Amino acid sequence: MDFQQSPKAVALLDRLRAFMAEHVYPNERLYYDQVAADRWEMPPILAELMDKAKAAGLWNLFLPESGHGAGLTNVEYAPLCEEMGRVHWSSQIFNCSAPDTGNMETLERFGTEEQKDKWLKPLLDGSIRSAFAMTEPAVASSDATNIESSIVRDGDDYVINGRKWWISGAGEERCRIFIFMGKTDFDAPRHKQQSMILVPRDTPGVTILRPMTVLGYDDAPHGHMEIVFDNVRVPAANILLGEGRGFEIAQARLGPGRIHHCMRLIGLAERALELWCKRLKGRVAFGKPLAEQGVQLDRLAEARAMIDQARLLTLHAAWRMDTVGNKVAKADIAMIKFVAPDMAAQVIDWAIQAHGAAGLSQDFVLAQSYVHARKLRFADGPDEVHRAQVGKLELAKYA
Amino acid sequence: MDFQQSPKAVALLDRLRAFMAEHVYPNERLYYDQVAADRWEMPPILAELMDKAKAAGLWNLFLPESGHGAGLTNVEYAPLCEEMGRVHWSSQIFNCSAPDTGNMETLERFGTEEQKDKWLKPLLDGSIRSAFAMTEPAVASSDATNIESSIVRDGDDYVINGRKWWISGAGEERCRIFIFMGKTDFDAPRHKQQSMILVPRDTPGVTILRPMTVLGYDDAPHGHMEIVFDNVRVPAANILLGEGRGFEIAQARLGPGRIHHCMRLIGLAERALELWCKRLKGRVAFGKPLAEQGVQLDRLAEARAMIDQARLLTLHAAWRMDTVGNKVAKADIAMIKFVAPDMAAQVIDWAIQAHGAAGLSQDFVLAQSYVHARKLRFADGPDEVHRAQVGKLELAKYA
Amino acid sequence: MDFQQSPKAVALLDRLRAFMAEHVYPNERLYYDQVAADRWEMPPILAELMDKAKAAGLWNLFLPESGHGAGLTNVEYAPLCEEMGRVHWSSQIFNCSAPDTGNMETLERFGTEEQKDKWLKPLLDGSIRSAFAMTEPAVASSDATNIESSIVRDGDDYVINGRKWWISGAGEERCRIFIFMGKTDFDAPRHKQQSMILVPRDTPGVTILRPMTVLGYDDAPHGHMEIVFDNVRVPAANILLGEGRGFEIAQARLGPGRIHHCMRLIGLAERALELWCKRLKGRVAFGKPLAEQGVQLDRLAEARAMIDQARLLTLHAAWRMDTVGNKVAKADIAMIKFVAPDMAAQVIDWAIQAHGAAGLSQDFVLAQSYVHARKLRFADGPDEVHRAQVGKLELAKYA
Amino acid sequence: MDFQQSPKAVALLDRLRAFMAEHVYPNERLYYDQVAADRWEMPPILAELMDKAKAAGLWNLFLPESGHGAGLTNVEYAPLCEEMGRVHWSSQIFNCSAPDTGNMETLERFGTEEQKDKWLKPLLDGSIRSAFAMTEPAVASSDATNIESSIVRDGDDYVINGRKWWISGAGEERCRIFIFMGKTDFDAPRHKQQSMILVPRDTPGVTILRPMTVLGYDDAPHGHMEIVFDNVRVPAANILLGEGRGFEIAQARLGPGRIHHCMRLIGLAERALELWCKRLKGRVAFGKPLAEQGVQLDRLAEARAMIDQARLLTLHAAWRMDTVGNKVAKADIAMIKFVAPDMAAQVIDWAIQAHGAAGLSQDFVLAQSYVHARKLRFADGPDEVHRAQVGKLELAKYA
Repeated sequence: MDFQQSPKAVALLDRLRAFMAEHVYPNERLYYDQVAADRWEMPPILAELMDKAKAAGLWNLFLPESGHGAGLTNVEYAPLCEEMGRVHWSSQIFNCSAPDTGNMETLERFGTEEQKDKWLKPLLDGSIRSAFAMTEPAVASSDATNIESSIVRDGDDYVINGRKWWISGAGEERCRIFIFMGKTDFDAPRHKQQSMILVPRDTPGVTILRPMTVLGYDDAPHGHMEIVFDNVRVPAANILLGEGRGFEIAQARLGPGRIHHCMRLIGLAERALELWCKRLKGRVAFGKPLAEQGVQLDRLAEARAMIDQARLLTLHAAWRMDTVGNKVAKADIAMIKFVAPDMAAQVIDWAIQAHGAAGLSQDFVLAQSYVHARKLRFADGPDEVHRAQVGKLELAKYA
Repeated sequence: MDFQQSPKAVALLDRLRAFMAEHVYPNERLYYDQVAADRWEMPPILAELMDKAKAAGLWNLFLPESGHGAGLTNVEYAPLCEEMGRVHWSSQIFNCSAPDTGNMETLERFGTEEQKDKWLKPLLDGSIRSAFAMTEPAVASSDATNIESSIVRDGDDYVINGRKWWISGAGEERCRIFIFMGKTDFDAPRHKQQSMILVPRDTPGVTILRPMTVLGYDDAPHGHMEIVFDNVRVPAANILLGEGRGFEIAQARLGPGRIHHCMRLIGLAERALELWCKRLKGRVAFGKPLAEQGVQLDRLAEARAMIDQARLLTLHAAWRMDTVGNKVAKADIAMIKFVAPDMAAQVIDWAIQAHGAAGLSQDFVLAQSYVHARKLRFADGPDEVHRAQVGKLELAKYA
Repeated sequence: MDFQQSPKAVALLDRLRAFMAEHVYPNERLYYDQVAADRWEMPPILAELMDKAKAAGLWNLFLPESGHGAGLTNVEYAPLCEEMGRVHWSSQIFNCSAPDTGNMETLERFGTEEQKDKWLKPLLDGSIRSAFAMTEPAVASSDATNIESSIVRDGDDYVINGRKWWISGAGEERCRIFIFMGKTDFDAPRHKQQSMILVPRDTPGVTILRPMTVLGYDDAPHGHMEIVFDNVRVPAANILLGEGRGFEIAQARLGPGRIHHCMRLIGLAERALELWCKRLKGRVAFGKPLAEQGVQLDRLAEARAMIDQARLLTLHAAWRMDTVGNKVAKADIAMIKFVAPDMAAQVIDWAIQAHGAAGLSQDFVLAQSYVHARKLRFADGPDEVHRAQVGKLELAKYA
Repeated sequence: MDFQQSPKAVALLDRLRAFMAEHVYPNERLYYDQVAADRWEMPPILAELMDKAKAAGLWNLFLPESGHGAGLTNVEYAPLCEEMGRVHWSSQIFNCSAPDTGNMETLERFGTEEQKDKWLKPLLDGSIRSAFAMTEPAVASSDATNIESSIVRDGDDYVINGRKWWISGAGEERCRIFIFMGKTDFDAPRHKQQSMILVPRDTPGVTILRPMTVLGYDDAPHGHMEIVFDNVRVPAANILLGEGRGFEIAQARLGPGRIHHCMRLIGLAERALELWCKRLKGRVAFGKPLAEQGVQLDRLAEARAMIDQARLLTLHAAWRMDTVGNKVAKADIAMIKFVAPDMAAQVIDWAIQAHGAAGLSQDFVLAQSYVHARKLRFADGPDEVHRAQVGKLELAKYA
């Protein structure tokens, strides 16, 4: 047993940290200002930083087994992902942001050469972005079998109808392609009804209705959009892997997506802890530095223990994915999925509390960080679904 | 011991409930739409509803001992305040909203006849609104002695300098008057340095910089504003009660303000619980109604117990204020101040969780309700200050 | 609404407090020493104190509507019960201890004149004690319909067979009579199968096997006994109310029993808080009085808020029982049943933590108090049963 | 990074598991019966099992760097220690139980050859046991500088006076030697006043007063004893390392002792989780298997996540001790010290709750397990001390 990262991962982390320190933290405020000025376009600073990251060889680090990426294991990628997570929009700089990473993996594993040429290449290059259109307003989408959108074969085309929401990343003008999940056969066995198909954003019949807000944030320019697909017609060649394979693809992409979210959340929590400590050292109330107030020390200790435990659990899940595969590691993945967002939300909430009302405001990254962590208690299904699954798997050991 | 409310309070509550059902709930969406269209003006529907409330005799219910109000005790007012709290902006309809209620009480108790004529009258009438300018960005304002703004006598005037933020209600154009807290004598004993003075909003030198956001919400048109006071000159007659009396006035207004917040939060939590139950009855996931999932029943029970306990604690604090006075009841008031916001935030968070990601969005009142409850963990000082005070008072029993 | 107790209750509380101060606290250590010396007999000091309480008119205070008791409402009895609860064995002094109170109420309401003469009279007099034999080791007894013991009519007798455990109070030699619950008809409708019957402890076939321990305590001389009933024969006249009425009687006795437990737990928690505060004031570690450590103040505040809320919830439930009856108040009763034990266990646990390891030892009443509170999370059904019931009742409001 | 244990550790774990399955679990009940029959003597079954373990080469596994032990790193020892922890008295079988392990390490590192011959040899052989006499009733002993016992040089002897309590392991007749901590110089610098000295248990003046109980358990035959040292005279050669070195020795022994406790607690929690799952699968209430009740699944998931996280944190701390040393790893050690006992107590408490009142009784190991975990929240200082330390170390990063 060895908790030391590989030299390769350590070296990359050093370079990434230096990049964050030199280029990202100093531009945080600028990023937000540019977004405020032009809400649904890519902020210019992001384009600049992407160029710099590409030049620095900090690009597409996420791809675990691919000629395109850094060739890192999940375990090796974890600290890099955590580091990016410290600034919640910074993964884009390194072309490592959700949902593009999952979409690129999906295209790489399941796409035809033509599909790869047309969509994977520009995605790997960072010249376009993508979205994953699965969740629907009318049904409890944590259970993917509930999905009601239809994908109907008509000659050489498929015709798509349905309403989706919480389609993250679809807000930005750069987002050019959707991986759409719907049903090609409502009468097939429960897990064979679904298919995935590529839908270019500018296809007639696609209407982006509105951004969903999350506790008051619309996360522009990324956005979590509600979209109507009204008789949207795409070539039959756009289907992924074939009819009825949608559930299978969905399963394959879940593992890495979940673990990346968790790694980033650990970075987000570390950042909040850092801001919290600095705040405590700089404020005095009722004649006493905040740092000497016992309840703060007690909470700091709890926060440190929570973060370290969540990180180790996530690394362990990554190691399981690397060594026994995502399927066998399903309990590990489900577990971090409910541990990490809850941990991060709690740590950030304490950090906010130490900042006074300012912690809830636009003047600190804490408010937006909290909302991000809170939101992830729903991503890929609410906590309750993952918790029930882990409970059942525990009981199943004694069947 | 009798938990039955007086016939007077029961009758008023019946009328208020009928009013809410007939006029308020059906206009909730309209209110938000009007605010979205014209962010810092009074929405027309609010003016309509205020007229209806005044006509219905549901006006100025909060004033406990006054010819102007309904003449209710704190205990009697509690259920009315809770009822209004179910829709977080509805107190205004009945001219019972913070910070106007506290400002009206302050003027009634400590104002000169001239001050009352000029400001209390239109406030009681609902034709203007007001704000309370105390919190400052540069210091930990939970400790009021930290305040650094200056109020300097100059001939027949006072000249005011300072920067304030989180000045709630100052966003709306109708807000015409500020009660400003600053220091008239930086060398006086610690609790004699502060004074309060009336500053009309349109006085030269007053600049409203920006609304503070709270987890993404700016709470327009109410707003929590940052304001600069730069050599603001007002007549000496605008001082309240005299120089050095600011801390004394601040103490007097704290009790009722806190208890009203708590009563409203209980209503807000009840509303969330109602939405939660209805959601559970209408959704199915993994082949089972959400309502039959044991963890939901368990949480509902906890929520019901938390709400009922917080309500009883708040009523008990109100009864103590009515019978022994705000000063003797200080532990009771401090206790509800940290119990009620925390309870409401937790209950609403659970309700959100049962709604899926939609619960965090603009489609349900839950998101804004959560933010409101979370924010109140800071109003009148963060939880930690009130908790430490209650802890000390407990120990003091054994001195 | 009025939180003031009646003059009658206030006067009784004053006398009870004076009695506790003069006679009970000074004899706590002696009681434990006498129990240690002669484990399953009544300690002599208890007999002395009972005589004193009877002489002082502090006797049978619990009976709500009866010529025998003090004629108090549940609300009026609450503070008395809380006061007794401060010393977990002191209710016996005033003939107000479980399960005798429930058994006396049952006999008074449902017993024949002959049954009352023979058993109720000496119970009211305090010359014997009683037990309630319901829980069985083989089945989940929180669901009373699971019970498997049999009561079979045979001529002028009933013949009883079954194994019971956790029969509280059956350890002491003074315990002379059991109210036994079993089935007279296994084929009747689900809630008509059960009957209750009086079984004198010295009936042939009754074998007391062993005391159950609770986290190491056997609660001698009271005890929670495992008992075998092997062809135990009693006269047919011993049946209560008639065959098939057992469930009905069980329902009737649940309300007061539960509420008394909760009232006593509040007293127990108050006592722990008092010991905790005194400890904090008397200890120094790392150069600082424990009382100044912020985490302790924070916990004290939480404890005070938890106790006060649980007390108010219990009083409110008592008032509901007094005004709308036990049946309508079932959600209220279920709620205090899970709130009060959990609250008391947490408060006592914190108090222990402030005492260091000594808090877990025989040198403080805290250890035994904790175990008592923990045990009550199971009495009359585990928390989970009551919580699920409250959850269901909440949902039922929106049917 | 690699979470796989070394082949050596894996092989030892396999053998240990087989031994536990074949020899320990089947004798758990017998062990308790023998202890009940003869409370302060070594139970015969323990002697038998020790012989078997010695023969199987499962002996003194704990010694990390020594010719006597298995030569395992802390990381390698962790899973073995966890496995033993599943039966809370089983470490003795393998001569790996506290406080003997710490005492053996102390003698090995700091003892003279004569001291080793006389005491270390029989301890390594398992023919005697030992105790560590530090904690005192009169002072807050979590702060070791508070200690008041005296060790006074008198010619060729030291004369010892003081009162100690919670001296674990001193109850058993086999315990022959105490390592005693007291002050040789009350006027020296704060951390130079203390010395450690060897005191044979049968030295005149040593009186074992009583066992301290822990929530009703006296943990016989091990015991946590109160002991008076009244003018106890031992040869000057019995001092360890020299006068004024006591604090230094105390620091050295803390790390491994704490980490072993935590490893064992993880085993204890795993055992409880196993019993809990089995219970859920075998019980029905209100017409539904307990295993299908959502709140149980939810808790199982939380328990699994808590255990796995605590194990990883403990392994990580062990790895830090192995690679950077106990001193640098002090935050890691302090963190597991408060995480593991709290985790175990919570998991066991839930397991108890699923067993009904029986879970608190002598019929399941859960009650004693809970008490053991609860007690360890005080061992080597209460949680609060370790939490404050971790909080301070976190803040110190930003000095």
